[in-house]
Parts: sequence; structure tokens; C-alpha cells
Amino acid sequence: MEKKRILTGDRPTGKLHLGHYVGSISNRVKLQDKYECFFIIADLHMLTTKPGKEDIEAISDNARDMVLDYLACGIDPEKSVIYLQSAVPEIYELNLFFEMLVTVPRLQRLPSLKDMAKAAHLDEMPFGLLGYPVLQAGDILLPMAHLVPVGKDNLAHVELTREIARRFNNLYGEVFPIPEPLVGDVPTLVGIDGKAKMSKSLNNAIMLSDDAKTVEKKVYKMYTDPNRVSADVPGQVEGNPVFIYHDIFNSDKEEVEDLKMRYREGRVGDVEVKQKLAKALNNFLEPIRERREKYSSITGYVDEVLYQGTLRMREEARKTLVTVRKAMGLTGVWNRISRKAEKYRKNAEKEK
Amino acid sequence: MEKKRILTGDRPTGKLHLGHYVGSISNRVKLQDKYECFFIIADLHMLTTKPGKEDIEAISDNARDMVLDYLACGIDPEKSVIYLQSAVPEIYELNLFFEMLVTVPRLQRLPSLKDMAKAAHLDEMPFGLLGYPVLQAGDILLPMAHLVPVGKDNLAHVELTREIARRFNNLYGEVFPIPEPLVGDVPTLVGIDGKAKMSKSLNNAIMLSDDAKTVEKKVYKMYTDPNRVSADVPGQVEGNPVFIYHDIFNSDKEEVEDLKMRYREGRVGDVEVKQKLAKALNNFLEPIRERREKYSSITGYVDEVLYQGTLRMREEARKTLVTVRKAMGLTGVWNRISRKAEKYRKNAEKEK
Repeated sequence: MEKKRILTGDRPTGKLHLGHYVGSISNRVKLQDKYECFFIIADLHMLTTKPGKEDIEAISDNARDMVLDYLACGIDPEKSVIYLQSAVPEIYELNLFFEMLVTVPRLQRLPSLKDMAKAAHLDEMPFGLLGYPVLQAGDILLPMAHLVPVGKDNLAHVELTREIARRFNNLYGEVFPIPEPLVGDVPTLVGIDGKAKMSKSLNNAIMLSDDAKTVEKKVYKMYTDPNRVSADVPGQVEGNPVFIYHDIFNSDKEEVEDLKMRYREGRVGDVEVKQKLAKALNNFLEPIRERREKYSSITGYVDEVLYQGTLRMREEARKTLVTVRKAMGLTGVWNRISRKAEKYRKNAEKEK
Repeated sequence: MEKKRILTGDRPTGKLHLGHYVGSISNRVKLQDKYECFFIIADLHMLTTKPGKEDIEAISDNARDMVLDYLACGIDPEKSVIYLQSAVPEIYELNLFFEMLVTVPRLQRLPSLKDMAKAAHLDEMPFGLLGYPVLQAGDILLPMAHLVPVGKDNLAHVELTREIARRFNNLYGEVFPIPEPLVGDVPTLVGIDGKAKMSKSLNNAIMLSDDAKTVEKKVYKMYTDPNRVSADVPGQVEGNPVFIYHDIFNSDKEEVEDLKMRYREGRVGDVEVKQKLAKALNNFLEPIRERREKYSSITGYVDEVLYQGTLRMREEARKTLVTVRKAMGLTGVWNRISRKAEKYRKNAEKEK
């Protein structure tokens, strides 16, 4: 039996950080063995809030950095397809067809869009941003994906994709699978400032590509229990970023338990906790760094992965659109005109 | 100097009637000498309110009937391009780029859209219908049209196209002309029932393809002055459909003046007025019928016109999108990836 297909991906924002790893990349590395994965570098989605020329110019570097991080984390281009959305022309066409199958109020009920407009400091909703979940439905259905890994926050988008697929199938016959959400927890990682979700723009991130020294420096700056003015004051472990990171990234569970106990009892300094965290993080990052080093040392390798993935996706997209146009009847429209025109030309030839 | 370009057209609704002739076709026949005209058969716009399979299946016959009427009225495919919108893939792409450059409230302020949704008995606005003026901007700018013939009702759509062209040029550099509306009066012709605008669906139309007998029958059924119960009662000429038609289609102006005078004085029967109108209409339609007969007798000729026009438009569209992608920077994104990937493959080849 053929493997089921998965579609997921990212906007091309450049280098990834530990938060990305925890939230999605580690899960993708697992998924690629069981499923045929399509990872989209969604640059057209970026245009919905950032259509500026300088944003577009940054896409190739950002995509390259991102794909390099994918590969460094263990995503295998022999198993999975990584592709650039804007370089697959069929998406534009599928998107327009899907735009006919959904109403404005339906899209306006999706809460995420207003937040996105606000976050981008837009007073008025761009039409393309309101249409972003439709484009996303196109992304999912272009490779005929069966499954979409999502957090609970994004279930509404998969639900819309399911509605569009059903509506299309009802109108034109069974073409699309009705994709299922693959709901896992999508854990968010707190930033090193302890305040918010890790984010490059908040400058509270440890990047997957940070070297050992940078990781150490960032860890030493980390926010811990603010009430603990010296090493002999009992501290709070729960919700403390240093221990959250220890729990996730330190493979020496005994060490973590020992540190927690001593921290609660006021028998360990922040310095020791942080030194051990920095070491654990660097242990965790070392194999990622090695693969990163290996792939980035081969000129053009990352580009080749993205290039071949895009060609592969184009082939899938071409097949899907042949099916779509045929089901809708648009192929027939053009064929009838072409065939009759050909007949005219043949007759005109004969008469000469 | 090169001729300026015009974009205008119709949804593929099939055979045309006298109302179409008066409202737009006669004007197009005049425009084609002075301008390079692109006439779009806008089948994708039809999908905004009628996405059903049976509607799509009817497109080729409807387009054919319509193009035959264009040709019969004197539109010359040697001078003008007649093309099928859905068969020019670049429109889908340009449409998505334009969707990023306009806001939802801006589109919602266009009054025509709500009327269209209402007319199509749609409770909720389809997203594609709200986006229809954006797609239209794509239609206009795909062949880089300078002028758009419109009635005053549609000025708002050209204004939106101008805004989108300006916004694109501001963001990415001077690519598009800012198209001007070519405002003429777009006269509407009353139906033979005297009640409303001539319309096939209201069954009050004289078709350009009606034969002489059918025209006579329809004219005899025409609504005139309802207060005139017999030939000796003075009648009302103003607003009387029979005289509106006489004014437009009867080239014998003396005859028309004589009929009007006698009608006002109660000295002419409806039968005579109508007989003379039927004769005048048939005189007017005769050369159209002859051309219609000529073109329809050549197997596939109409299809060939539409086919070649579409190929011609594809060439223009291809050129426009090369310019658009380059200006936006998307060409650069893909080129940088492709070139580096090529370098990788060359090196890999050498190492073998």
C-alpha cells in the first residue's frame, strides 16, 4: 500500500531555533518514515502581510537557511519533498478555483486572520490575507495530502480545507481526499527571557546554528527564579525556563533530578545549573551542527535539494491540475475549441 | 507610434441580441480601427456566481455563438484579439499577486458586487465574487491595456484597477500603464415588452441571429402606447419602444418622422408602424446575417479565431508575467536557487 501523504511547512523566515525544533521539526523527522511528506516553503503566504520587494529579495537566503536547518535536524530529502511554493505555477490556478467555493463570512469567522493583520500592523485586512486559508487549502490539496499535522489552534484551517475539498467533490466528482488533521501537541518553548514564546524577532532565541560559545553565553543570560537572590535560597523549579530546557534537552535525567532537588532546597547555584544546561544543549546540538557543517560545505547542495523538490512537486501539481480541469470540464471546453480549429486548418490546407 | 491597447469583453452567455449591439458591440467595431483591441471571453468570471459543472460545459458553445456574433457584427480578427480567459494560465498568477495589493473594505465598498450576489440568489458573498474586480484588474493589465471602454456604472472598477496598477508600480517599479476609462454612453435598449432592459433571460430580446420571420413576429408582439385602443386615437411617441427602435435602427429618417407625426395625430395604425419597423430591423440585420451565414458555413472557423486569439494572448501574457516576476524579485529568488543547484550538479559530475 502506498504511504499516506502529509503537507506541512513554514514561511521562509530564515534560520530556525530550538522553539521550531520542539514545536514541529522533531515531529517531522519522525513522520517522514511512516508518511510521504511534502514540506512547503510558503513564500506566497509571506506576501499576504509582507509584499515588499526587500522581503521578496530575502526569500532565497531565508529558504536556504531554513532548508539547511531541516537537513541538519535529520529531514531526509530522499524520503521527503521540500519545495518552494511560488515556483509551482499550478497553485495559482487551484487557488482561484477554490476561491469560488467559499464565502467571505466563512473566512471572516476564522479568528487567526484578525490576529495576523494586527500583528502585521495593518489597519485594514488585505484581500490576500483573508484568502490565505484558501491558498493553504490549495497547498494541502495540490499534492493530494491526506494528513496535515496541526496544533489545536490551527484545526479551523484544516476544517476549511475539508469543506473546500468536499464542495469541490460534490460539484465536480470525487477528486480530492478529505484531509485529516494530525493533531499532536505542538509544544511552544519559552524564550530565554522567560517572558514569551521563543522568537527570533523578540531576540530571546537559541538558534539551531548557534555555536557552542554563543549557546553558553545565551544560557548564562537566561531568566531563572527572580526571588532567588543567592545560591542558598530555595528556588522554584516549576515554570523556570532553565528547568524547562533541562527537561527537554538534557538526556541525563538523573542529573536533572539532582539539580531540581538541590535547587528547591537552596543547595545549588544558578551558575552550576546553567553550566550543566549549556553542556546539555551543546550535546543535543552537536550532531545537528555536524550535519549542518557537512551539508553547507558542499556548494549548492541545499539549493539542489530545494530545486529537485520543487521539480518533483511540479510534477505532482501538474497531475493534480490535469485531474482538476478535467473534472471541472475546463479541459473539455478548450479541447472542443482546439479540435474544431484544427479541423478548420486541415480543410484550409487541403484547399490550397 | 504603436496603437494604444483596449481590453473589454463579455461573460460567455451565448447568442447576442440588439441590446448588446447598441450597448457595446457597435462601439467595439468602431474602436478596432484606432486601437489594438483585446476582447476577453470571461469564463472565469462566470465561475464567481455559477461554478456548476453544467455551466462550465456550456462555455464552448456559448463562446462560439458569441464570437460568431462578434464576427457577424464586423469585429475583425485580423485587427483584434478574441480570447478565452481560462485558457491563459498567467491570469491566475497575476490575480494572486494583485490580491495582496487591495483590502477587503476597499472591495466591499464597490456597490455592484452586492447586486451581483443578490441577482445570483446567493445569501452569502462568495470570496471569488468579492475578488472579481481584482481578477478584472488582472484581465485589464495582463495585455497592458491603456483604455477600458465603460459606462458610468463601471467607472469604479476601472478606478480600482488604476489603484492596483499604481500600488504595484510603487512597490516594484514601473511595470503597468495606469489604464484610463473610455467613458462613452453605453445606451441600454428597452425590451420588446417595454418593461425593462433587453435580456435573453427576460424573454424580451430580438437576437442578432433571429431570422426575418422571427423578427417580424417579435415586432408584432411589441408593446406600444397602451392607451391607444384604435388607429384613430392620438398616441405617445416618447418612450414608446416601437419608436425607440425606429430611431435607432431605421435608416429612413423621413419615414420615421412621417410615422411619428401620424402616430401623434391618430392617423396611422400600429400594424403599419410595426411592419415598417420589422422591415427596417431586417434591413439592419441582413448584412449581419450574411456574415453570420458566411462564417458559420466554414467548419471550425469561429473556433480557429478563438484559438488563435488565445494563443496570441498567451504570448502577451507570458511577456507580462516575465516582467512582473522580474520586477517583484521572484525570478531572482528562483534563479539564485537554480544556479547554485546547477553548480552542485556540475561539481558532482566532475567528481565522478
